[in-house]
Amino acid sequence: MTDIGHTIDAANREAVRRIMSAEPVLVDVVPAAEVLPRLRERTILHAGPPIGWDRMCGPMRGAVMGIAVFEGWARDLAEAETMAAAGDFTFEPNHDHDCVGPMTGMTTRGQLLLVVENRTFGNRAYCAINEGLGKVMRFGGNDAEVLNRIRWLTTALGPALGTALREMGGIPLKPIIARGLGMGDEMHQRNVACSSLLLRLLVPALARTATNTQALAENLTFIAANDQFFLNVAMAMGKAMTDPARGIAGSSVVTAMCRNGTDFGIRVSGTGDRWFTAPVEMPVGMFFPGFTAADANPDMGDSAIVETIGLGGFAMGAAPAVVGFIGAGNASEAAVFTRAMGEITIAENPEWTIPAMDYRGVPTGIDIRLVVETGLMPTINTGVAHKLPGVGQVGAGVVKAPRACFDAALEAFAETMGVGIADHAAVSTAALGEAADGGP
Amino acid sequence: MTDIGHTIDAANREAVRRIMSAEPVLVDVVPAAEVLPRLRERTILHAGPPIGWDRMCGPMRGAVMGIAVFEGWARDLAEAETMAAAGDFTFEPNHDHDCVGPMTGMTTRGQLLLVVENRTFGNRAYCAINEGLGKVMRFGGNDAEVLNRIRWLTTALGPALGTALREMGGIPLKPIIARGLGMGDEMHQRNVACSSLLLRLLVPALARTATNTQALAENLTFIAANDQFFLNVAMAMGKAMTDPARGIAGSSVVTAMCRNGTDFGIRVSGTGDRWFTAPVEMPVGMFFPGFTAADANPDMGDSAIVETIGLGGFAMGAAPAVVGFIGAGNASEAAVFTRAMGEITIAENPEWTIPAMDYRGVPTGIDIRLVVETGLMPTINTGVAHKLPGVGQVGAGVVKAPRACFDAALEAFAETMGVGIADHAAVSTAALGEAADGGP
Repeated sequence: MTDIGHTIDAANREAVRRIMSAEPVLVDVVPAAEVLPRLRERTILHAGPPIGWDRMCGPMRGAVMGIAVFEGWARDLAEAETMAAAGDFTFEPNHDHDCVGPMTGMTTRGQLLLVVENRTFGNRAYCAINEGLGKVMRFGGNDAEVLNRIRWLTTALGPALGTALREMGGIPLKPIIARGLGMGDEMHQRNVACSSLLLRLLVPALARTATNTQALAENLTFIAANDQFFLNVAMAMGKAMTDPARGIAGSSVVTAMCRNGTDFGIRVSGTGDRWFTAPVEMPVGMFFPGFTAADANPDMGDSAIVETIGLGGFAMGAAPAVVGFIGAGNASEAAVFTRAMGEITIAENPEWTIPAMDYRGVPTGIDIRLVVETGLMPTINTGVAHKLPGVGQVGAGVVKAPRACFDAALEAFAETMGVGIADHAAVSTAALGEAADGGP
Repeated sequence: MTDIGHTIDAANREAVRRIMSAEPVLVDVVPAAEVLPRLRERTILHAGPPIGWDRMCGPMRGAVMGIAVFEGWARDLAEAETMAAAGDFTFEPNHDHDCVGPMTGMTTRGQLLLVVENRTFGNRAYCAINEGLGKVMRFGGNDAEVLNRIRWLTTALGPALGTALREMGGIPLKPIIARGLGMGDEMHQRNVACSSLLLRLLVPALARTATNTQALAENLTFIAANDQFFLNVAMAMGKAMTDPARGIAGSSVVTAMCRNGTDFGIRVSGTGDRWFTAPVEMPVGMFFPGFTAADANPDMGDSAIVETIGLGGFAMGAAPAVVGFIGAGNASEAAVFTRAMGEITIAENPEWTIPAMDYRGVPTGIDIRLVVETGLMPTINTGVAHKLPGVGQVGAGVVKAPRACFDAALEAFAETMGVGIADHAAVSTAALGEAADGGP
């Protein structure tokens, strides 16, 4: 192996070591304005790489209008739309504020956020509370029902959840994921096991700290009715785990994958916070009754952070029921997806194993070199939003990350290694020794 | 097919139709004395076929001594043992009183029982509340800690659970099983998914009906800490589902399998309530640290009722993690067990399917003819008790039903069909046409 090969190999081992040695703990629920000092009035954080109003897809526009009304910046959706078009709002990616958000991913000052602390590295990451299924803001919903639900999360469920978590001293998340992988979850399209396990851990503290049994019953009813409640926890966990792996010189490991409904963006450790983007693809999947592919918005959301840590489409082997739900083939072939993702990652996570695959660890640490060389694009399990504002979820499917992101990232990465834009083959695994054989 | 073949085939279809068309609902928790009129003072119901004190194994003796103290029939364990040996207690099988009990399976007047109502047929079945893991009465534990826990179940958790269930109008159990089969449970050695799903369904009603948050927190803490909480619910469900299939003339379908730690017993629909018994076998499995096979008591408990309805060892394909836990091979080979049980059953349950096996239904309706002809004995997943009284659980494993039960049952069954004890080959599937090809 060349010197440059050893450098990349060592840097990648360090990136994956940081990801896998994380100790993510769900510790609190807090007002966004208190913990995100750079999140100002009339600033809206969104999913995916940077984007302005002019290029935003329908559901993201719908969510922007809704959240502006929720925050009191506009009297109604029409005024919000006018203000957005006039440039009255500042749009920034969640990822630049230690946040993530599913689908449209709206984060603003008035919301309460789940807090995941990475106790190995001391960093924290944030995500709003999951709103449930159907017509919800993350899928572009913005009517009174949607806004009232977010108000209730902010005034009722969120504070109670925060109190319970503080009383408990937080909930370590790695053991929940480890169990969930033996219970059919991949933590992207299927979170029923982890949602149930989380509730089971929370209920004693929720009861001990409840002010009255009626409010407690309402909170428990909401959590218990939502199979995807854990998704947002998993996403904040993914962000908390990957952030310490950012900015390692010489590492070709992906530290973020996300989509704003228009562009797909990735970040790579060795190239820091630079985004490499390409047009998002259309998920292939199943649609709810009354909807078809013609209604679907392309791929959207920060939720691909769970694939970045080896879950979601990467852990499909743990979740045969998901394969059918998203229309990706026979349930018994779920392991095929996980094996394929093993070809583009440099490690298997020994703490997160898949019983049905004889306890193989989930494939972790996407190497952009392996993606480009194998042509195997990261597989992402995703919900599908209606392409128009205000409608909501219409289905679920599987989508590939676009190759152009990885080609562009590899060129830029090669440049950081001093081998020139036109000569990125010099950093290929073939030239440098195959990192996938070693692993950390 | 011969006339007798048609008769058996039709009778077996009817037996399986009754089992699969059951609508089991967890409806209440009630005092045993109120619902079991034939359960008198100093009568102790036990797991398995009939047995007296003289032939009882160590852990069952331990449990008998403990429950006698719990009921106030003896001042201490020593007095209870003296009384038992003197014939002061009446011993009868749970199965003769609409009950089932795991392992030692003690049921007495002073306990509270879970109630599962089969809404298709109107019958009810009962099982005590699961005590948790470790040193517990079902594994032969009998000290003050064990008895105090049963008192707490009877005075605190049980009444609260009953109130919540009545307020909700009961919890249908079939959908929980259907979900649990996609979440790694087989409902015998692994119930973590179903226990979590049940808690999730219960918590809103438990909160709404709680008298104070402290008592609620204690109840929730107990349920949430017990991965096997659902086992006793599944057992009462199994009893409620199989009882309507009893006594169908000409049916060779098994309606009960159970063990008292000394004898294994089965009942067959066409031979009514007659027991066919043989010595129990020793489970092959894994032992907790500090214990070995030399400490183990042979197979015990009414819990094999879950195998009788297609779960437990019959649904191993749904629960790869169980295979390792009980030391039965590679996790990825879990489906092998389910396929083998398909050879001795006459139907697959379309409502209870295994995603990892491409939604094959669990094998249902054990035909004693197929067991005898194939030599494939029912596979049962089981906990393992210490052979001495008062110790508790020492491991978990897999055990086969003994062949002699099925040989004896087939002889008696042949006699009911008028073909004579010595000529039971006349009712074989080979002679009569293979019921397994048809199914109901």
